[in-house]
Amino acid sequence: MNYILRDENAIYYECGYSSDNALYLRLGSEAWLITDSRYTVEAREAVRDAEVVEAADLFKAARALLRQRGAGRVVFDPKDWSVAGMEALRARLPHVRFVPRPDLSHRKRMIKRPEEIALLKEAARLGREGFDTFARYLATGGLDKREKRLHFEAEAALSHYGEYALSFDPIVAINANAAKPHALPTETLLKEGDLLLVDAGLKYRRYCSDRTRTVAVGRHLHFGDDQRFASPKIQKAYDLVRKAHDVAIEKARTGMTGAQIDRLAREVIEEGGMGRAFVHSTGHGVGLDIHEMPYISARSETVVEEGMVFTIEPGVYFPGEFGIRIEDMVVMKEGRAEIL
Amino acid sequence: MNYILRDENAIYYECGYSSDNALYLRLGSEAWLITDSRYTVEAREAVRDAEVVEAADLFKAARALLRQRGAGRVVFDPKDWSVAGMEALRARLPHVRFVPRPDLSHRKRMIKRPEEIALLKEAARLGREGFDTFARYLATGGLDKREKRLHFEAEAALSHYGEYALSFDPIVAINANAAKPHALPTETLLKEGDLLLVDAGLKYRRYCSDRTRTVAVGRHLHFGDDQRFASPKIQKAYDLVRKAHDVAIEKARTGMTGAQIDRLAREVIEEGGMGRAFVHSTGHGVGLDIHEMPYISARSETVVEEGMVFTIEPGVYFPGEFGIRIEDMVVMKEGRAEIL
Repeated sequence: MNYILRDENAIYYECGYSSDNALYLRLGSEAWLITDSRYTVEAREAVRDAEVVEAADLFKAARALLRQRGAGRVVFDPKDWSVAGMEALRARLPHVRFVPRPDLSHRKRMIKRPEEIALLKEAARLGREGFDTFARYLATGGLDKREKRLHFEAEAALSHYGEYALSFDPIVAINANAAKPHALPTETLLKEGDLLLVDAGLKYRRYCSDRTRTVAVGRHLHFGDDQRFASPKIQKAYDLVRKAHDVAIEKARTGMTGAQIDRLAREVIEEGGMGRAFVHSTGHGVGLDIHEMPYISARSETVVEEGMVFTIEPGVYFPGEFGIRIEDMVVMKEGRAEIL
Repeated sequence: MNYILRDENAIYYECGYSSDNALYLRLGSEAWLITDSRYTVEAREAVRDAEVVEAADLFKAARALLRQRGAGRVVFDPKDWSVAGMEALRARLPHVRFVPRPDLSHRKRMIKRPEEIALLKEAARLGREGFDTFARYLATGGLDKREKRLHFEAEAALSHYGEYALSFDPIVAINANAAKPHALPTETLLKEGDLLLVDAGLKYRRYCSDRTRTVAVGRHLHFGDDQRFASPKIQKAYDLVRKAHDVAIEKARTGMTGAQIDRLAREVIEEGGMGRAFVHSTGHGVGLDIHEMPYISARSETVVEEGMVFTIEPGVYFPGEFGIRIEDMVVMKEGRAEIL
């Protein structure tokens, strides 16, 4: 298959290198990484199974290759290409048919190779270490700090003070702010007895981690699963979400669809009477991108296979009151889900 | 003019609100901000001069409005739209002509309103404060720290410890690493007498700051313009870049093109015999985006006008040795460039 890639992670997956100004072109058995002069020295050291082409105008260089090789049909991902980028490529190439194929790279990347699983496992481990560092900060100096400051300290801890990039902007949300699945940090101060939701991850050699914990704030704050809240309503919600999380991981099997695994978690929460508060899907794939296939949602027909890596993250949200979410990454191994 | 926007900052500029899942549609005198249920509460509080439409499928909602109003021609920016997004919009709308207009929003935003200039001025001031905080860290605890750690400390200082978002990933580069205009942090340790290049900025109420300084590392480290390097070659390059920076700001006038202002800086460096080491353009506009129009480059035909805000950032780069860049933001005021 002939294809052309624009997305950084899609390109990295193919040849072990990418830059913020690059194209990857594959025509039959030949492949090229096209980038500008700022990056070609590093590219030549890192790229495997492709020839590095230096060009000021990437599109022009790609057109030249397409013409030389007489390519007739080239697949691309319409989500990764801007209208302007595709126009720049298509211009003056009347004989090439560019065929859109959504999720072209994500589909290839769904089943992780053993070495990718090892990197994701290490990312998850380092991510947990970051949570523990953050817990120590919270227990000793977190009280009376604003959510904005806590957000900064979460970034510091999760990045291991600059050692690792973050896989996304962390969510650090107190009480009612945790009821917004995409909360932004506010001026609220952290108090003893508060509920705190933390959703954060880092990248280890470009592979992402992703984890969420919802905890009771106090001297013995920790990110373990056993949490004691003063409010019976919060405790009930917490126990229910924890059960949904555990049941989904316990019962997930290869051969199920994403929708069937979503169902495992959703059923628990529905039976506990909080179905309407579970407003998002149960999980998403994780790899080079923080959101990949397979999606673990009510409408996902993707069949889950050995070697896939995804999150299980049920949650319930009560606007104006609080929100609970518990999230771990799992890998499908010997037919079952194992926490990374 | 009818138009439809996809970019977050473009949308924010029109109506004072945007989210990471939104569309803005203007048809004649009517306008709509279309977003999903996660954001509509905040949107209704913040949006001005547009109606907020809640929709699970933004494209479907936009199509419905286009049909109802019988729109015939709608302009869009092909750089901001993915091929998939434009397809989703165009589908089943055979009677609407979508006309690409590159930089649609950037062109409108080139001349800043007085209140925007005030925000940019405050961003620049807070950015300088961040540099000063970073200088104190460097002078007291920066020696023998790895570039990666310095990068983290620059983020901490520039963000005022989480108070402000950064306008881009800072560049913190020692000696030879500063010779790469887009350096990534390494394991190199900072030593007395080193050259350190810092390029960083923050956002104040969404408006960006951008500043670069290249300094000599020692007990009296500061980000002022007077820098003393032990190496005569470095000192010569520094003095030349500083002169190019000062001359360009002194001589820039409204009515000049971006290319003419670029020429002001480039000429100084060419006359100093380092023209080939000045490998990038002299500057770029700054506003809601960190890179906007006008571009101050050899090929820029944009005529610079009162109220435009852009950087002046000449630099010279000697691969394997060192790099120098000095950058400030200026606003055109009473015909001349004034540092923000």
